[in-house]
Amino acid sequence: MKKHNFYAGPSILPQYTIKNTADAILDFAGTGLSLLEISHRSKEFQAVMDEAQALVKELLDVPAGYEVVFVGGGASLQFCMVPFNLLNTKAAYLKTGVWAKKAQKEAAMFGEVVEVASSEDKTFCYIPKGFEAKVPTDVDYFHYTSNNTIYGTEIRKDPDVKVPLVADMSSDIFSRPIDVSKYSIIYGGAQKNLAPAGVTFAIVKQDALGKVNRPIPTMLDYRTHIDGGSMFNTPPCVSVYGALQTLKWLKAEGGVKEMERRAIVKSDKLYSEIDRNPFFKATVEDHEDRSRMNICFVMNDNYKELENDFMEFAKSQGMIGIKGHRSVGGFRASTYNALPEESVDALIAAMKEFEKKH
Amino acid sequence: MKKHNFYAGPSILPQYTIKNTADAILDFAGTGLSLLEISHRSKEFQAVMDEAQALVKELLDVPAGYEVVFVGGGASLQFCMVPFNLLNTKAAYLKTGVWAKKAQKEAAMFGEVVEVASSEDKTFCYIPKGFEAKVPTDVDYFHYTSNNTIYGTEIRKDPDVKVPLVADMSSDIFSRPIDVSKYSIIYGGAQKNLAPAGVTFAIVKQDALGKVNRPIPTMLDYRTHIDGGSMFNTPPCVSVYGALQTLKWLKAEGGVKEMERRAIVKSDKLYSEIDRNPFFKATVEDHEDRSRMNICFVMNDNYKELENDFMEFAKSQGMIGIKGHRSVGGFRASTYNALPEESVDALIAAMKEFEKKH
Repeated sequence: MKKHNFYAGPSILPQYTIKNTADAILDFAGTGLSLLEISHRSKEFQAVMDEAQALVKELLDVPAGYEVVFVGGGASLQFCMVPFNLLNTKAAYLKTGVWAKKAQKEAAMFGEVVEVASSEDKTFCYIPKGFEAKVPTDVDYFHYTSNNTIYGTEIRKDPDVKVPLVADMSSDIFSRPIDVSKYSIIYGGAQKNLAPAGVTFAIVKQDALGKVNRPIPTMLDYRTHIDGGSMFNTPPCVSVYGALQTLKWLKAEGGVKEMERRAIVKSDKLYSEIDRNPFFKATVEDHEDRSRMNICFVMNDNYKELENDFMEFAKSQGMIGIKGHRSVGGFRASTYNALPEESVDALIAAMKEFEKKH
Repeated sequence: MKKHNFYAGPSILPQYTIKNTADAILDFAGTGLSLLEISHRSKEFQAVMDEAQALVKELLDVPAGYEVVFVGGGASLQFCMVPFNLLNTKAAYLKTGVWAKKAQKEAAMFGEVVEVASSEDKTFCYIPKGFEAKVPTDVDYFHYTSNNTIYGTEIRKDPDVKVPLVADMSSDIFSRPIDVSKYSIIYGGAQKNLAPAGVTFAIVKQDALGKVNRPIPTMLDYRTHIDGGSMFNTPPCVSVYGALQTLKWLKAEGGVKEMERRAIVKSDKLYSEIDRNPFFKATVEDHEDRSRMNICFVMNDNYKELENDFMEFAKSQGMIGIKGHRSVGGFRASTYNALPEESVDALIAAMKEFEKKH
């Protein structure tokens, strides 16, 4: 039976990425060698790295003065790299989920942290209103998480603030156009809309760097990776190769505008069914706050005892990875760029079928 | 023509690793999904991580009280993680090459660094004699690099020192038995004898941790990764999968004792030819210091002008990656575990043929 991959991450990638990566592991760029065993200093791999960086710039319309770096360690390592590089005395954080909270915790090791707003009071099921106006003007930067994978909330508007802006866009990068010029740093683990796990991207405004007084360990200094073209040390070659394939696919499919159109179609469909079907309800009520990438829902109040039944039924229909995070419960359908509309249709059909049967 | 992969890293891996990784990218563990798009929290991937850690322990005979972690970021990130976790006031470093020097430089950000000995005076072409006796007894740890990839020197004896011992074994791990009980931390980038680039291993003695006073960023604290079973955040899944394949291959081939036997055969053969052939000379004179993993040689004094000729000739015979590092010049043949003896034979044949032609 056709499998529908709703994993939250690592998650579905285009067949183009999967096939080309498998092929390159058998024969990379006609070298007769595997992508797994080729020097990162070879001209063939250098071309991969260069093209991947260039395509990120092209697809996101990155202005001059910014560099794209690929490093290891995940977004979790960025949680300390950001304050290492930017925090002199004080930073502001928006607490909209577990990852936002973890980022904030790391920053507190480096200076004072102002919590601009939090939605922890209601299991992070909403985005605090009017947070932009609450960002102090005397902080070194303001950090927020654009999409909260676990809770299914998303901030799609590039915030208007008067201080340097930093965003963790791990789980919604490339799902819509963004105004990069508003940001000092945009970073993210690549294992959602971009690449196999193992590589992290950062889009860094160069003149935001070099303003802190502390010594920065070499590998945690963005300048190391900018100066080294993300080749200061051996990069995660397979993941970067996978990123390049997805970027090529993205471009061929119409870029981030087309991804936004598809994300709207897919998420509107699924939220509509959740709202209509008496057996289910969305965990995020405010339509404006609802993520287009991670759609969280639970059984409606009268049908709580049917949760396992629906889980089993959905599995029997080919749905994979729809179990909600333990802190939210219920279900989560992650609808990243590579998820075809037919998978959303299949999930909706399963929900309708379940409604009919009960 | 058959290619002979002498790259210094990323470098040749067993065909078993290459084939199984390519297969898993098309269908991972019978899930019908790609290894690139499966959750690291799936039971199928959890089994990969668990088995990889267990096999490292088994193959290196790791005693109780140690844990194996897999993280991202490369050995270069370990250069700061080691002092972050272990350096209170003073550490001792042995400077035997560029990587040793980089590790030492990072430590200096955290406390006093005693340089026990250095071979920088002669482009790191030897291992300083008697360094063990020179390690101060009042340091928090002594750090050395067991194999110097660029210069082709190697310290194969586990040093006897009276302080906690830390080794970067990036490029010779799994090439011989080691006495892990002598070490507090053994770490390395995995992209030589273990895995595709993107994952770093560390074998950590648990009671060596928790003795420093500074706050440690979460991702740089070994305890985070020990407690999280290397799943605190999303691991570099493909590289860990590749590591598991190589570990299985290693075990099936006879383990590290057999790898040592093969390394002796291969390196003895090649050094013998270098020493015999009047056109070439080894850059490391002392036989005891010569690496079994990276065999560096240059044209002999009377034949300097033939360097390009030999390079072109060797390439025409299928040799790949034998150009020496720019700081040493000449040639470097990396003879890692997965390099078959026939590749060494082919290189030797090319050297003999070159001798005959000139």
